[in-house]
Amino acid sequence: MMNKRFPIVAVALLCTVQTAFSQLPAGLKPLESNINKNSYPAVTQDLRVAFRLRAPEADRVQIDLGRRYDMTRDAEGFWTVTTDPQDAGFHYYSLILDGVAVADPASESFYGMGRMASAVDLPEAGVDFYDVKDVPRGAMRSDYYFSNVTNSWRHMYVYTPPGYDTDTRRYPVMYIQHGGGEDERGWATQGRTDIILDNLIAEGKAVPMIVVIANGNVAGAAGGTGYADDAQAAFRAEITSNIIPYVDGRYRTYTDARRRALCGLSMGGGQSFYSGLGSPLLFANVGMFSSGLYGRGADAEVFDVEAAMPGILSDSAMYNDRLRVFYISCGEGDPRIEPTKRAVALFREKGLNVEFNSFPGGHEWQVWRKSLHDFAQKLFK
Amino acid sequence: MMNKRFPIVAVALLCTVQTAFSQLPAGLKPLESNINKNSYPAVTQDLRVAFRLRAPEADRVQIDLGRRYDMTRDAEGFWTVTTDPQDAGFHYYSLILDGVAVADPASESFYGMGRMASAVDLPEAGVDFYDVKDVPRGAMRSDYYFSNVTNSWRHMYVYTPPGYDTDTRRYPVMYIQHGGGEDERGWATQGRTDIILDNLIAEGKAVPMIVVIANGNVAGAAGGTGYADDAQAAFRAEITSNIIPYVDGRYRTYTDARRRALCGLSMGGGQSFYSGLGSPLLFANVGMFSSGLYGRGADAEVFDVEAAMPGILSDSAMYNDRLRVFYISCGEGDPRIEPTKRAVALFREKGLNVEFNSFPGGHEWQVWRKSLHDFAQKLFK
Repeated sequence: MMNKRFPIVAVALLCTVQTAFSQLPAGLKPLESNINKNSYPAVTQDLRVAFRLRAPEADRVQIDLGRRYDMTRDAEGFWTVTTDPQDAGFHYYSLILDGVAVADPASESFYGMGRMASAVDLPEAGVDFYDVKDVPRGAMRSDYYFSNVTNSWRHMYVYTPPGYDTDTRRYPVMYIQHGGGEDERGWATQGRTDIILDNLIAEGKAVPMIVVIANGNVAGAAGGTGYADDAQAAFRAEITSNIIPYVDGRYRTYTDARRRALCGLSMGGGQSFYSGLGSPLLFANVGMFSSGLYGRGADAEVFDVEAAMPGILSDSAMYNDRLRVFYISCGEGDPRIEPTKRAVALFREKGLNVEFNSFPGGHEWQVWRKSLHDFAQKLFK
Repeated sequence: MMNKRFPIVAVALLCTVQTAFSQLPAGLKPLESNINKNSYPAVTQDLRVAFRLRAPEADRVQIDLGRRYDMTRDAEGFWTVTTDPQDAGFHYYSLILDGVAVADPASESFYGMGRMASAVDLPEAGVDFYDVKDVPRGAMRSDYYFSNVTNSWRHMYVYTPPGYDTDTRRYPVMYIQHGGGEDERGWATQGRTDIILDNLIAEGKAVPMIVVIANGNVAGAAGGTGYADDAQAAFRAEITSNIIPYVDGRYRTYTDARRRALCGLSMGGGQSFYSGLGSPLLFANVGMFSSGLYGRGADAEVFDVEAAMPGILSDSAMYNDRLRVFYISCGEGDPRIEPTKRAVALFREKGLNVEFNSFPGGHEWQVWRKSLHDFAQKLFK
């Protein structure tokens, strides 16, 4: 035995996972996002998710998967619950341990909900566009640039397509932004951007392009974040003064607006609206995934899009001329779907060219993966 | 306000962090690895770490940072503790919440201890070799290859040096392996491999090289893991049959043993010993960081290195002829230090050329960052 030669002093780094090592009941399959071959979380054929945790000292344990499920304790201190059937795709969840929301030690963690959160990624029958396949592969690169907006080094991911290392040509560029409570890891990890692009390019459905995934959390001058005016202005300064110049200096990009796109999900779609539609010299392709486009309160109206983007309704011809692709998508189970449809109808009534698509699911990554997959096929052709 | 136009329906993704938003007492500084500008964990000048968590329903909360610290609850349900002074560098820690070890929602998580774990990364005065600087940068790439050992796609990181995209030359390659309970994210994230190499190359202290960071968790034919004989054999099959052929096919590498290195920390150093010293046609450079090299039990002897690697003591000339660099390092506070020194003394007594270095600290990432920094400077010159 090797143990005699290299004994288990590495034990400090060895696994101590709280989930029981156990046989799974028939019909349950462990998820691929489980850590260290944990049996749980496990999924049934109809996409119910079973959770199990050993916590003999806890008084109350819940799973928060959109709604909260109380777990039940057995005599040995194992807590279990099986949820209702879930939508296919990627769902953040939390373990609520005596009132504190934490990541489940049995699963992978992902940056979302403003912290490292757990997730289940439930397979969708017949859907494999985000699976790794034996196709020519580009590279997802980790990179840093210095921001004179935040006065700090900032991290980004850059996808370069297959062939980038060996040819000398230039490529069009898609900039893609995450949502609130997320960061650049969203599209790199949850979104599987590199795998989606590799597969699309291999099938000839998308042209080879560079994809830039930057961190969109840039606080505004007045301390605002997210959708606040000053945060939108700060993001616009960041992408125009720092991100694009850095990318164009370091990578072999085309630098004209027609071969540059800006898109994003939720908050990132809002950034795409303001920085994308608002910067016609920089972006001729704009995509908004699950971004709302509606007002506040009980009687939410279509928001004042003309005030936000002057001319978009009153001079749609100018926007049609500037834009090659203006794309909007939303999950069919997302509360944003109806206001989004109303906004799209208004755009079309005013003559603005806008492409719209919707996908099954809520305000979730399965919709955003499909939105990227759809949007990328429309670009740079 | 933007809120009227893009209201806060993104709230599902917004931050709900359990740490209090609070003013920090004088002398406390939040750590850079805190998420979302949380005030805690925070560090004092003498490297004590202060933790704070809101958990009004919990009965017992501890921090496990090598040793366990009990936290104290105040009337509002905030739990706090300040630790003893810590070593500088990166330390995994857990929150123990009513007996369950979980990641702290206030901090970044890292794959270690067989699950996503929290960590504090305490600055070391005068040490900046792993800080991002304004130097030419290579790229840390995410990549996949198909393994016929595990019959699955496996993930790896590949660092390509500055200039790789624009020149056409070939580069020497370092393969570097993580420890037990970790995976390929260890060297990419905790280890800061890309930043360390960028800085070394910029200073002219290391030659430009490719660095491959693969997942070393390959179960043996008999189900063994870690240091077990069958797991060592499986890793050797993986690196020789899958990893190296993939890398040499995809990247512009030199393919001779003199320009290829294998190194690793702890378990990865064991893999470097067996697959590295044991494959002279493939590797002429081998590094073992904090790997032990000693026997079991109370009266641990120097382990039977001659049985493990025939000829290494009895025919050191053969190994000296094969090897350009054989490097061993260890933390000075690691229990492995004395057995490692005995093994190094034995090697030298038998005439084997071995370089040895030690660094302040225990069985931890600060020692491994310094080991990489040191080892990389010795290679391919």
